Amino acid sequence: MNTALSLYDYLRERRAEVETALASALPASPDSPTVVAEAMRYSLDAGGKRLRPILCLASAEAVAVQRGGDPDDARALALPAACALELIHTYSLVHDDLPAMDNDTMRRGKPTLHIVAGEGMAILAGDGLLTEAFALMARAPASSDPAIVDRKLRVIGIVATAAGAVGMVGGQALDLAMVPQAVGSPVPIDADSLRVMHAKKTGALITAAAVAGSTMGGGDRAAVATIRSCAERFGLAFQIVDDILDVEGASADMGKTLGKDAAAGKPTYPAIHGIEASRRMAHDCIAQAETTLARGGLDGTRLGEIGRWIVERTN
Amino acid sequence: MNTALSLYDYLRERRAEVETALASALPASPDSPTVVAEAMRYSLDAGGKRLRPILCLASAEAVAVQRGGDPDDARALALPAACALELIHTYSLVHDDLPAMDNDTMRRGKPTLHIVAGEGMAILAGDGLLTEAFALMARAPASSDPAIVDRKLRVIGIVATAAGAVGMVGGQALDLAMVPQAVGSPVPIDADSLRVMHAKKTGALITAAAVAGSTMGGGDRAAVATIRSCAERFGLAFQIVDDILDVEGASADMGKTLGKDAAAGKPTYPAIHGIEASRRMAHDCIAQAETTLARGGLDGTRLGEIGRWIVERTN
Repeated sequence: MNTALSLYDYLRERRAEVETALASALPASPDSPTVVAEAMRYSLDAGGKRLRPILCLASAEAVAVQRGGDPDDARALALPAACALELIHTYSLVHDDLPAMDNDTMRRGKPTLHIVAGEGMAILAGDGLLTEAFALMARAPASSDPAIVDRKLRVIGIVATAAGAVGMVGGQALDLAMVPQAVGSPVPIDADSLRVMHAKKTGALITAAAVAGSTMGGGDRAAVATIRSCAERFGLAFQIVDDILDVEGASADMGKTLGKDAAAGKPTYPAIHGIEASRRMAHDCIAQAETTLARGGLDGTRLGEIGRWIVERTN
Repeated sequence: MNTALSLYDYLRERRAEVETALASALPASPDSPTVVAEAMRYSLDAGGKRLRPILCLASAEAVAVQRGGDPDDARALALPAACALELIHTYSLVHDDLPAMDNDTMRRGKPTLHIVAGEGMAILAGDGLLTEAFALMARAPASSDPAIVDRKLRVIGIVATAAGAVGMVGGQALDLAMVPQAVGSPVPIDADSLRVMHAKKTGALITAAAVAGSTMGGGDRAAVATIRSCAERFGLAFQIVDDILDVEGASADMGKTLGKDAAAGKPTYPAIHGIEASRRMAHDCIAQAETTLARGGLDGTRLGEIGRWIVERTN
């Protein structure tokens, strides 16, 4: 690992690596009909932080460094899964933004896909992004090494489980069911239900990113368990900060409509705990993650810095 | 293979096998929140012909019989993929029925999912069914045998590619783009474009079912190629018959609104070629498939009978 790089430069390099890989991650037209290829590309190219793929790559590096391996090799093995996670994250945003869900018109500073391509094509493009994620993880990295084939299959299972009904889809369903029937009506939601909903909706995929990366990078059982535990804290911190930014952030930084959750009567961390306590909870999560990393001998890797980035971000 | 079984009994046995496996194919609540677990189950339990899983199982049996293996063992290896294909087929129906797509209110004799659960939950349940298909194929059959692990990974790639933008999602996008802007306006569609659209929308997943089954069953390259070629003919025949039944079928048999495609100005085989020529085309497909099977030494298996079932079905 090039420890001379600042976190800023590290994130920039990893992001560039991910963008390059994403550019060839989807099937090209005419095999993929232009109309849906363009719709998928529109949302994928809208950018974003690329948190999940970067966390995946950093986790692969961390386990490689721990056992004296080459972090570049580990990252190369994890790159397809990193891209697949971003395809899945992007599909979830496209579907969440639909009129039947959150009904959002702006995302990452651009009109949402259903605004520019219509609802039917947005549903299909989301379906396509989700499906291509699995096609990508099945074909890459190309290898007939049984150890790599085994890792790829395990990672597909990890990602599918996290993205499915016990994870992200389940969390989104809980979120949808929590929306009050009339604006202003009381929301029957307590702190525990909020935590469970977010652990599924946001936490599961963030955790899967770290577990997938450390698995592809060849981490042993103990290292993967340490990274899983760390990423679970990251996921919670990420959601708390997201809720705080929804209240406090600048619309230009966030690239989406702000204050919508509160206005819709949706439960948020600041609404339940207040801003200051929420901020403290996010920092506590990162402190716990750092303790976990130290106990597992994975301190001194980029993961700790990524945790601090998660709580200090402004978008 | 128990050749004493009539096709009717064979289909009934395979269907029962699939129904039993489907009953435990999805994660149970409370891991999967009840609201989305019930929505997924509603559509999956609506029945249907289970053509794709049965074709998958029959293909696994066929390659096993050809090399003197045990068809029951081959079927057991293919059963998770068979179920995954039905999950994917079911998700595609749920999303196709949405108001932004075909806007159908009846399916398999029951109100469509968005009618009973709302659009948002129908979108999520479809997403969940698609995702769980990959989770299922990754975890089952549970095996650490490198040959089986390798087959599972290849089958995930085959299924994901067929279900994605170059296959089913791409075909649905083409179909969506073909709908005339105003009812009664001319549809700019020729026979070739119709064939390509259906090859993607319907054919790709039917072909994937046969290829997945023969791969899980341990078929060699030649056997899998024979079965792929046969299944491509089946897929085309299936779609032609579907179009004919949309014109001629009885609504009670089909369990869905009929005549909708023609009324919406959608291109169909009977509309382009006429009923009689369409019927001939479907039978020609099956004859070609039988020739392919005979050349590949796979005649005498259930696959030929399944072809005849496809053209002779009334629902």
